[in-house]
Amino acid sequence: MERHGLILVHTGDGKGKTTAALGLAIRAFGAGLKVLILQFIKGARRSGELEALKILGVEVRQLGLGFITKENFSEQKNLAHSAIEIARQEILSGAWDLIVLDEINYAVKFGLLDAQEILELIKIRPPQMHLVFTGRAAPPELIDAADLVTEMKLIKHPFQKGIVAQAGIEF
Amino acid sequence: MERHGLILVHTGDGKGKTTAALGLAIRAFGAGLKVLILQFIKGARRSGELEALKILGVEVRQLGLGFITKENFSEQKNLAHSAIEIARQEILSGAWDLIVLDEINYAVKFGLLDAQEILELIKIRPPQMHLVFTGRAAPPELIDAADLVTEMKLIKHPFQKGIVAQAGIEF
Repeated sequence: MERHGLILVHTGDGKGKTTAALGLAIRAFGAGLKVLILQFIKGARRSGELEALKILGVEVRQLGLGFITKENFSEQKNLAHSAIEIARQEILSGAWDLIVLDEINYAVKFGLLDAQEILELIKIRPPQMHLVFTGRAAPPELIDAADLVTEMKLIKHPFQKGIVAQAGIEF
Repeated sequence: MERHGLILVHTGDGKGKTTAALGLAIRAFGAGLKVLILQFIKGARRSGELEALKILGVEVRQLGLGFITKENFSEQKNLAHSAIEIARQEILSGAWDLIVLDEINYAVKFGLLDAQEILELIKIRPPQMHLVFTGRAAPPELIDAADLVTEMKLIKHPFQKGIVAQAGIEF
């Protein structure tokens, strides 16, 4: 079958952008593809997913600090640049069939990275490599460059009903 | 922490409804919750995800025949009713923290089940049990009853560019 590396984008204000990307990574891994997950914002969180990915042997690298705050902004910016350098090297290595760049859109939205740096990743990739970009507010240039774009749209949220976030479900 | 069973819905015409639900199931499983996945339409497909879920030990039961056709409609309808009976028993058993009812919305949309049969599942569930309903065109009654509703919206699809579906990514 013709193998064509896809550029996928999960964006929007709803849930499921990262979760669907991790689910996709697991599907691809289960189908025998070599999969790498790079998390641009998150630090050591989401232990449920990480536990499961670890059991499966899917490689995940957390390259951020967690939430962006005024206090950690410049450190986050440095980390985002290290992260994109790591992404560049891993893409050029050709060792992977699929790389998830989790929350990278968010890094652009908050001024940690330029949209141009993201587009560069697409340009340098081997033509058969799939890339998945997640995070709300994907830059328009990325949407133009993408093959498959899904907007996860919040229709209704339990916070609106006053229910607190549920362990194992929402985090 | 307060434990409150959530009703989650993934709907819309975009990708990621099932994938995000499976990712969520994996997160919940990794966090120590007891998780069951019931697939209402699918037969023996999506081997990548199933392989991964099998390795993890997440229980998945495929209760359908695959795509609905004119020829298999009445058989699909019988299977959907068996499936909802299985869902009812598993919900009442209280043995699970989270049950994914994959593609159940689709079963309603295509007339295999009534929306009322879905609402019934919500009514009989133990109050701490989370339920996830996936499939495009979720019935409005289900959206009313839900806590967290996400619409996966198709913004752009590679078929529009003439690229064929990619193994390990789209199926």
